[in-house]
Amino acid sequence: MRMVDVIEKKRNGGVLSKEEIHYFVEGYTEGTIPDYQASALMMAVYFRGMTAEETGTLTEAMVQSGDVIDLSSIHGHKVDKHSTGGVGDKISFITGPLVAAAGVPVAKMSGRGLGHTGGTIDKLESIAGFNVEMSKEAFTASVNEHKLAVAGQTGNLAPADKKLYSLRDVTATVDSIPLIAGSIMSKKLASGADSIVLDVKTGSGAFMKSLEDSRALAEEMVRIGDHVGRETLAVISDMNQPLGHEIGNANEIREAAAVLSGENIPDLRKLSLELAVHMTLQAGAYSSEEEARRDLEASLDDGRAFQAFRTFVQAQGGDVSMIDDLSLLPRADHEIAIPAEHAGWVQEIDAASVGTAAMYLGAGRATKDDEIDHGVGITLKKKIGDYVEAGETLAVLTAASAAHPDAEEKLRGAYTIGASRQDVPELIHDIIRA
Amino acid sequence: MRMVDVIEKKRNGGVLSKEEIHYFVEGYTEGTIPDYQASALMMAVYFRGMTAEETGTLTEAMVQSGDVIDLSSIHGHKVDKHSTGGVGDKISFITGPLVAAAGVPVAKMSGRGLGHTGGTIDKLESIAGFNVEMSKEAFTASVNEHKLAVAGQTGNLAPADKKLYSLRDVTATVDSIPLIAGSIMSKKLASGADSIVLDVKTGSGAFMKSLEDSRALAEEMVRIGDHVGRETLAVISDMNQPLGHEIGNANEIREAAAVLSGENIPDLRKLSLELAVHMTLQAGAYSSEEEARRDLEASLDDGRAFQAFRTFVQAQGGDVSMIDDLSLLPRADHEIAIPAEHAGWVQEIDAASVGTAAMYLGAGRATKDDEIDHGVGITLKKKIGDYVEAGETLAVLTAASAAHPDAEEKLRGAYTIGASRQDVPELIHDIIRA
Repeated sequence: MRMVDVIEKKRNGGVLSKEEIHYFVEGYTEGTIPDYQASALMMAVYFRGMTAEETGTLTEAMVQSGDVIDLSSIHGHKVDKHSTGGVGDKISFITGPLVAAAGVPVAKMSGRGLGHTGGTIDKLESIAGFNVEMSKEAFTASVNEHKLAVAGQTGNLAPADKKLYSLRDVTATVDSIPLIAGSIMSKKLASGADSIVLDVKTGSGAFMKSLEDSRALAEEMVRIGDHVGRETLAVISDMNQPLGHEIGNANEIREAAAVLSGENIPDLRKLSLELAVHMTLQAGAYSSEEEARRDLEASLDDGRAFQAFRTFVQAQGGDVSMIDDLSLLPRADHEIAIPAEHAGWVQEIDAASVGTAAMYLGAGRATKDDEIDHGVGITLKKKIGDYVEAGETLAVLTAASAAHPDAEEKLRGAYTIGASRQDVPELIHDIIRA
Repeated sequence: MRMVDVIEKKRNGGVLSKEEIHYFVEGYTEGTIPDYQASALMMAVYFRGMTAEETGTLTEAMVQSGDVIDLSSIHGHKVDKHSTGGVGDKISFITGPLVAAAGVPVAKMSGRGLGHTGGTIDKLESIAGFNVEMSKEAFTASVNEHKLAVAGQTGNLAPADKKLYSLRDVTATVDSIPLIAGSIMSKKLASGADSIVLDVKTGSGAFMKSLEDSRALAEEMVRIGDHVGRETLAVISDMNQPLGHEIGNANEIREAAAVLSGENIPDLRKLSLELAVHMTLQAGAYSSEEEARRDLEASLDDGRAFQAFRTFVQAQGGDVSMIDDLSLLPRADHEIAIPAEHAGWVQEIDAASVGTAAMYLGAGRATKDDEIDHGVGITLKKKIGDYVEAGETLAVLTAASAAHPDAEEKLRGAYTIGASRQDVPELIHDIIRA
């Protein structure tokens, strides 16, 4: 087999065979197929697409390129949840304890990574003492006992995807729905869960701006799950503004804990419940969607969910006093208010700009070596649909210095205030099942 | 400027600016832009095409990436002729002397290269003593005195094209008409001629199989010439079977010399005259096409063209006795006849198979280090439209051994004999002007 023939076949609109896809993924991972042939193939895929069968095979081949985590010593049906990424997305900190409280095991391996804020682990490390370094045995034991544990990611998951994604990033071949779907699903499948609930974001602050593209991506991922026999469901949720009000590390833990204590922050509570309903149903914890929803709501309101969170934090060495009294979580010294320049209704809050402002403050990493400041962040006082008077505070920066002009300017620019009343965007746009 | 943005622009169907194209060509030549970005761009160009303006700019940038030959010390209007390549194509050996005899200078720099037969220089070296190594001054003096000289190619012409072509070859991005046109024209323009006549082949034995594609390629090349202010005309000629009857090195010199002596080998004489008419008209040697055609025909018939060839061979140290008596040209010892298996009309002669058979005999190089045997080759006794009896000779191999099974089999397979009468294909399909 010659790689140039594989490229030409796809370029001409052909359907690649299982053998051709494995030949490519294995050769590329080993380095016998060079980057310049891989990028040409990726561009041909951009234009020609891939069938469900091809995408499924590509994903499997990428999973097989590295380690696959074995969760079999954890009792019960393991459900994983994955978000395609948004600003202010602290949903995992709510669904994790909520699902665990329902008796469904959540075994999460997470990374740090680059971004507007830190990753899951960085956020948890806002809690003093919180520790994600544990042996496989300790991790398994912890999930079996408490139904929830988060460990630092070990192992070499889907290295083919890692290598290919870096290449796609510099060759303008990222924006291909089958390739995006394969990339996300290869990592999820390598993580070993029995079933998967996806939170596919849509809107100005999401990777997929249009509902149509988001739906296509969700369908593709659900098809891949189906192809490999792993039940997968996708919720398409809105990212036309940040989720909730808090962006940062301690900021997000604080807000998640509030929701877990029954506070009604509408978008966070609604989306967390929706995802938890599907996660618990996949695990067979409830017999109907109505029953699941009723019990999970009750869990938020009667303290079961919060208790699961507290147990989890304690089990991983975290200082629970910070959870019992959220004001003890790290908080930088300075608060900088961003006032509205004129009165009107909030029309838009550009999530990417809010995220960038948070990164400027030090909440996220631009490069791998950057240190994260857990105590800095942003609190949105006004969201889409709110009315604001001239001079009234739109948002507050919690910063390490009394002024932070670049972050202030970025955050100010994120808001669009207009003269007409603006509806709150629909939160849940669609549910995609196999 | 970032290369990933250039790729994305083209991928999205945008038109690249002069600056973007130069940034790419210069960066790629220097090595600051890696192969994997270049191949992604080439694939995007494959799908999106390029405007005449973009193709012209790409070509100019590739010309500027290396040396440009300065022919200004040669008196008169210098015309170059280029063929897109076919089997049995010895037209240059006829048009060169024919045009020189009309007083138009032909300053040809040529290479050896890989292929079914040797390159121009290898073929000329069939003549004992023929020497292409000469200083720039000697070359100029020779063209000024005899109107025709062929030198070995020196200088680094269009290195960007060389590098890019090698990459396209292994990334399935060769078949793009603007890229093919730019590649050919960059080398021609770097060669310094004042105007260019292109012989674009079409048919089963050509790079472009369909007349439509051949016409598109011809139009693109003529447009590039126009873009850079170099008059360019293309003749679209047939390559559904080899040109003439001889394939090889000495074989082709022998057949060209015969045409120069007035022998009427119809396709060779007709195509050579057509190309020479346009070359001499570009140089202003005649006042009308009719006058050019009449005088050039006379030149073949009254010995002027042959005399120009003889003078040229002598000036470059070649043994003219071999030209005066063509039987003195090298000829391998063995003749192997290929008989027809059954009676019928010749329907097709697959030029690529004939070329491969010639290469098997040793007429061409498969790798750079192969030695060429000037005396081996193929003589086609029957061409498309001829009737053949069972057992009658279709073609003769001149070989270094009494049997050559692989070449014999290849040549036998090149012929298709059928029961119905077959028309001789049209030789000249079209003329493309700016």
